[in-house]
Amino acid sequence: MREAYQAELASINDGLVEMANLVGSAIGLATTALLDADLQLAESVISADEQVDDLQRDLENRAITVLARQQPVATDLRTVVTSLRISADLERSGDLAQHVAKLARMRYPERAVPHDLRRTILEMGRLAQRMMAQAAEVILTQDVKAALQLEQDDDRMDELHRAIFQHLMDDRWHHGVETAVDVALVGRYYERFADHAVSVARRVVYLVTGERADDLPTDGPRGM
Amino acid sequence: MREAYQAELASINDGLVEMANLVGSAIGLATTALLDADLQLAESVISADEQVDDLQRDLENRAITVLARQQPVATDLRTVVTSLRISADLERSGDLAQHVAKLARMRYPERAVPHDLRRTILEMGRLAQRMMAQAAEVILTQDVKAALQLEQDDDRMDELHRAIFQHLMDDRWHHGVETAVDVALVGRYYERFADHAVSVARRVVYLVTGERADDLPTDGPRGM
Repeated sequence: MREAYQAELASINDGLVEMANLVGSAIGLATTALLDADLQLAESVISADEQVDDLQRDLENRAITVLARQQPVATDLRTVVTSLRISADLERSGDLAQHVAKLARMRYPERAVPHDLRRTILEMGRLAQRMMAQAAEVILTQDVKAALQLEQDDDRMDELHRAIFQHLMDDRWHHGVETAVDVALVGRYYERFADHAVSVARRVVYLVTGERADDLPTDGPRGM
Repeated sequence: MREAYQAELASINDGLVEMANLVGSAIGLATTALLDADLQLAESVISADEQVDDLQRDLENRAITVLARQQPVATDLRTVVTSLRISADLERSGDLAQHVAKLARMRYPERAVPHDLRRTILEMGRLAQRMMAQAAEVILTQDVKAALQLEQDDDRMDELHRAIFQHLMDDRWHHGVETAVDVALVGRYYERFADHAVSVARRVVYLVTGERADDLPTDGPRGM
């Protein structure tokens, strides 16, 4: 009985790792779809999000079943509650990857991102993907140091987000309002995605150390 | 013992109602601050969000304590787990109200919203506030019908969000890129705020009826 229970906790953890890997991959593919105006790829990212949603529902049900049947206390209880929070973060990250893909689809066959911002968006996409891979690693290994690395990547993400806004507000901006709005929103999607990756890592740290990290800084570069 | 336990569950519920009322009030005040470029009001909304965050932490800790000490099953268990999810929705709604206030502060002494969009933003703000008041009502009364009303308000919110984007994309737009980006982001904040209010109500409905509502449509008017 006890063994089956520990196996179920481990399996919930595996499910979280799988979710994190799925959404990490999704943001990478969505970025390619966005930069290359690749409609087929965009569609595949959009429809793949269902899998993430299904996984979340499944994990949530399993967490509730564990709470009901095993009535965990202490660390096990905190593990289960944390898994609920993490799966919610990951589900939302999947939505954000989907938003990026939907922007690619909406502007197809045009490219939503003008040439002079491609490099910045490409870096944001790679960074987002790497951060989520790292979050998956933190869930898997409970390595607190790896979680701290994520904070640095998040600082870089904020820098890139700021750079986008500076570019948009530059008088030399000549891509018009629609593109500016597209880029502003897409910048926010990456920044939020990164926040969720950081949040996942912080929840694991809290679980391991009992020390709650500061509140997630949701403030973007424009004080928003 | 049993009585104290039911009282604790009821008190967690009261805490959620209090949170919902706080963030409902915050979005209303933030809207006024935004439309009137009222710096003092904006600052007060920004600093008041700490209270919402504190409440969430407190409710989360109390929920975990109930799980550990009382080991609830069946409906009581689902009530506690739902309270965790609802408090997360409300905490995030508080952040969004704060984002609106921060935009007001950032543009002060200018007004972030141009004259021709004031009426739309005003309606979005009022609608957001009403929706959250209704969500509070749903938490308090568990009235499933009131939850359905929220879905209609959310449709109206989506309409308003769409109207904003149409306005921004109109060739006659003459307020420049910065204002367009401000308005696009602020429109998204209201729309997300409304989504969270709907999400809160749906979680209560699921608790009461056992029927999971469809996934929250996070799709905005631009397919994002």
